[in-house]
Amino acid sequence: MAIKIYGPFRSPFVMAVALAIYEKDQEFELLMMDIKSPEYLNNFNPFGKIPSYQDEDITLFESKAIMRYIATKFADEGTPLLGSTIVEQALCNQWLEVHSHSFTQPMVEMARAIRGNPQQPDASVSKPALERVNNVLDTYEARLSTSKYLAGESYTLADITHTPFFYIFNAITDDENKKCITSRPHLHAWIQDISSRPAWKKLTERPENPHYKQ
Amino acid sequence: MAIKIYGPFRSPFVMAVALAIYEKDQEFELLMMDIKSPEYLNNFNPFGKIPSYQDEDITLFESKAIMRYIATKFADEGTPLLGSTIVEQALCNQWLEVHSHSFTQPMVEMARAIRGNPQQPDASVSKPALERVNNVLDTYEARLSTSKYLAGESYTLADITHTPFFYIFNAITDDENKKCITSRPHLHAWIQDISSRPAWKKLTERPENPHYKQ
Repeated sequence: MAIKIYGPFRSPFVMAVALAIYEKDQEFELLMMDIKSPEYLNNFNPFGKIPSYQDEDITLFESKAIMRYIATKFADEGTPLLGSTIVEQALCNQWLEVHSHSFTQPMVEMARAIRGNPQQPDASVSKPALERVNNVLDTYEARLSTSKYLAGESYTLADITHTPFFYIFNAITDDENKKCITSRPHLHAWIQDISSRPAWKKLTERPENPHYKQ
Repeated sequence: MAIKIYGPFRSPFVMAVALAIYEKDQEFELLMMDIKSPEYLNNFNPFGKIPSYQDEDITLFESKAIMRYIATKFADEGTPLLGSTIVEQALCNQWLEVHSHSFTQPMVEMARAIRGNPQQPDASVSKPALERVNNVLDTYEARLSTSKYLAGESYTLADITHTPFFYIFNAITDDENKKCITSRPHLHAWIQDISSRPAWKKLTERPENPHYKQ
């Protein structure tokens, strides 16, 4: 059975899983299902969220669990994604948790504020949302000023899980708000680095990508 | 250097890390620090949350990252905690994410509702909070009706991370609200099982435990 991912491409969580698969030189089918249907709730994810994953061995949900499974199952193929030492592995896990518990909410709030005001200049983004994003990104800047990637010298799942969020942020925001990133040199260089990888470029060129400009 | 954990014992996240350490037959020092102090923010956790962890090799934050590190570092000691197959490992990771993204918030809301009304009967817990808890626990009941532990046949970090939450829930709630648990036989049996382990008993008998009754 080919690898199947259920969920819309526009979701950064779906994109992160897909990126992990490409970094492992694997292919996948991207499928849509009604996440409120009994079929989806009973067979894929009882919480009705995306993405879900299926291959010949397992049906799995939660993007970070799926990414860890891919990184382990295809350990000997493509890019190693779990860190090269026990310390890097721990810091990879730490930054995956930071993504869940400190990074995602302010970034999603900011994206919603921008998207909710399509007729307004992006500067209408609420100051509190922008302030929260800036506070979080200060911590990333500090980390990336002493370390090439979030976990250390190795590219890992911690970098993968952030890549689509910055991509969407750049796609929907204006130069003024992009200063969150461009004013922080180490963060900026890291985003450029992780966004220039062949696996990511291949992914963003898929026809499902709503932000793809040929 | 002995293992050091920073954070108050009453936090279920601190307790979960401590339980993982005991399951690995290790000891730790429990220390408190002002989480808003520059010393804590600069040296332990820039987000000012607990718990943090320190040993001779690493300083780490985020309870699930700490637990994974402990499970890996002491892989050959005490109880294996990561699952015995790649599928169990994946499901352990899935249920750790479920704990973060579906379980914790309604349980914490319910605990806050109970604690916020100490003069009122526990039945004053808001119906919406109770309904959310019940919906989540339905999914646990379904899982545990086909599987001894959350990940499968093996006790793992997924079970550990839930243990303190049910302990605190039982400590602060009355029989009426306990029906969330007692009305679900597989969930109830699982909680009794994971709460009867020697490592958990040893932990709850520590003098720092505010719920310990001699």
